[in-house]
Amino acid sequence: MQLEIDGGFTTPEFQARVSRAQKLMGEYKLDGLLLSSMDNIRYIVGIDSTFWESYTRPWFVLVPAEGDPTAIIPEIGHSIMETTWVKELRSWPSPRPEDEGTSLLVNAISELPRRHGRVGAELGMELRLGMPVAQLLDVITKLKGIEIVDGANVIWQLRMIKSQAEVARIKRAIDITGTVFEAVPDFVEVGDTERTIQREFRARLNSGGAGAIPAVICRSDVGGPFEITGGPRDRPIVDGDLLFIDTGTTYDGYYCDYDRNYRVGNVSDALLQAHERVWQANEIGLEAARPGVTAASVFEQMANVLSSGDKNLNSNGRMGHGLGLRVTEPPSIRLGDQTVLVPGMVLCIEPGLEYEAGKIVLHEETVLITEDGAQLLTKRAPRQLPRID
Amino acid sequence: MQLEIDGGFTTPEFQARVSRAQKLMGEYKLDGLLLSSMDNIRYIVGIDSTFWESYTRPWFVLVPAEGDPTAIIPEIGHSIMETTWVKELRSWPSPRPEDEGTSLLVNAISELPRRHGRVGAELGMELRLGMPVAQLLDVITKLKGIEIVDGANVIWQLRMIKSQAEVARIKRAIDITGTVFEAVPDFVEVGDTERTIQREFRARLNSGGAGAIPAVICRSDVGGPFEITGGPRDRPIVDGDLLFIDTGTTYDGYYCDYDRNYRVGNVSDALLQAHERVWQANEIGLEAARPGVTAASVFEQMANVLSSGDKNLNSNGRMGHGLGLRVTEPPSIRLGDQTVLVPGMVLCIEPGLEYEAGKIVLHEETVLITEDGAQLLTKRAPRQLPRID
Repeated sequence: MQLEIDGGFTTPEFQARVSRAQKLMGEYKLDGLLLSSMDNIRYIVGIDSTFWESYTRPWFVLVPAEGDPTAIIPEIGHSIMETTWVKELRSWPSPRPEDEGTSLLVNAISELPRRHGRVGAELGMELRLGMPVAQLLDVITKLKGIEIVDGANVIWQLRMIKSQAEVARIKRAIDITGTVFEAVPDFVEVGDTERTIQREFRARLNSGGAGAIPAVICRSDVGGPFEITGGPRDRPIVDGDLLFIDTGTTYDGYYCDYDRNYRVGNVSDALLQAHERVWQANEIGLEAARPGVTAASVFEQMANVLSSGDKNLNSNGRMGHGLGLRVTEPPSIRLGDQTVLVPGMVLCIEPGLEYEAGKIVLHEETVLITEDGAQLLTKRAPRQLPRID
Repeated sequence: MQLEIDGGFTTPEFQARVSRAQKLMGEYKLDGLLLSSMDNIRYIVGIDSTFWESYTRPWFVLVPAEGDPTAIIPEIGHSIMETTWVKELRSWPSPRPEDEGTSLLVNAISELPRRHGRVGAELGMELRLGMPVAQLLDVITKLKGIEIVDGANVIWQLRMIKSQAEVARIKRAIDITGTVFEAVPDFVEVGDTERTIQREFRARLNSGGAGAIPAVICRSDVGGPFEITGGPRDRPIVDGDLLFIDTGTTYDGYYCDYDRNYRVGNVSDALLQAHERVWQANEIGLEAARPGVTAASVFEQMANVLSSGDKNLNSNGRMGHGLGLRVTEPPSIRLGDQTVLVPGMVLCIEPGLEYEAGKIVLHEETVLITEDGAQLLTKRAPRQLPRID
């Protein structure tokens, strides 16, 4: 796989995305797509900014059913937007709470050639609106003869299929992170705390060339972490622990999301057996993820390996998900998700087991779906748990 | 100022926040406050998690007008929520797109003692909803006799006033960052790029004890950056540049937000004069920020210093803002913001000047409003620009 990254994305890349968006808009009978969240704007425009961390000034991009997008942005963002491929810019002096871009937005939407009288917005599944809800409701009230409807189907059908340039960035994020995972037994020792391990892990991601490092989860407990969502504690790792590190790290905006597990000194046989079972389930998942099958069927095949007699099998509710400009994206690898896998999807395959109450083992690998099956992007976790002493 | 941080926040701290929230709910005639964004949930519950980076599973906290909060959370978050002071937990197996906590939410809101028939939510000013809009609309439809209204006034009046424990964390974030700012002339030299400088800056924040490092903006251009929102470029800094570094770095969830400027080699007199003018405006702002005055009047006094003949004075639309669990919070220091400053507010005072087209000088300091005026939390930027060669 040739995965070169030479500078940023090209204009043809963005044009291809818009063109695909417009084809989907046709299918869903939309006259336009209104985007306000940082990941969706970045997807269309290519801007890298942490300015969205502030909620004062919303940014908008309107993609019409035909033609090029319009950026409707606070004046403070005008200069950076001028450096992008988007040529139609409209700005307002922000902050201006009484009209934080609302009138510009209403005008731009109203000017769209009207065919269906419907514009898609970030209302639904796995989306967050990048402006206050009250502002969207105000826009809806002011639009005459145009309905704002959920654009989630268009957005996710668009973003679920990655271009080669997107895969290259995910792969780079994975490689930077993989190098750090491999070094863990060298730089971690008994007595280090979750917090100090997390700090050193981040330092190595940073020096290794990561972009942003939004999430490094570091959890440890004897036999396995009791949970996997919280921040680091000052708990030192001790003999018998399973150390679990999971990270959402980016390169040029694109995430990797995967974890690795380490045994600390001597661990129980029950843990080793659970680990082997989850590792085997991952093998099955990697084999199962092929074009033409559903996300649900990948789940089912992994569940068959894991479920012989175990309860709490499904406490995370799924065993994997999509990946891209967000750390998790549709589809979900779970019963009930009938999304059919197609080439270009990047998926995290993530079987997990709470093998005893409060002891979790979770494995995660990332694959690109190709015509020939799942191509592993991560370096496969070793079958034998790496050891820290 | 005694600012000790001994472990996490205490239960009485959270109880005091809830008690203040409930007083405000009385004033605004609300039976409850529904929270879904990470910062608002963290404010009430104290959880540190990067799990919200994934948009698959929303989390909710419902604060009733009387009594303790209820957490309505996906099962994956149950174990960490059990470690908090919140005792009433309700969970669902997530992901479950057909009911991602909606029915639990409707039930919990419906069970609230009904006095006003109104519940506040994150609809308005400088708020983002932590669930899909479509889900909120679904909740609204299913509620009988209870209206969901904007809770922004309650949320911001509550959060604008910081406790001593909160100020201590902001101060810690500032101190960690300040140490790195002071070292910039030692570790940066001509020829380094925005990207390499940003990377080294982040490394030092990390090793210095920062929590998350959501934003490090590093911009340079001859005479001053042309804009201040974008990501780093591979542009090397050259003689005549103004190097601008701005960061939103956290400690235990609380942000600092401030910038520093550096001259690279020999710079123009026009830049030095602009810098002096902005530095003086900052002096005025630090003096002006006192209890009893409005945010608008602080802006006005700084603007008087800056505006003698200059255009583009107000291209950022404001000259400062609040600070806390978000990198920017209300109020805005701008004309039109009639918020009266009171003790306990933490404010960034941020005069800026585009002294020539595409050349920006921006200064930012952080203060705590006390009975006696503004107490500087940052170490004041030197009047003479530090020099990099």
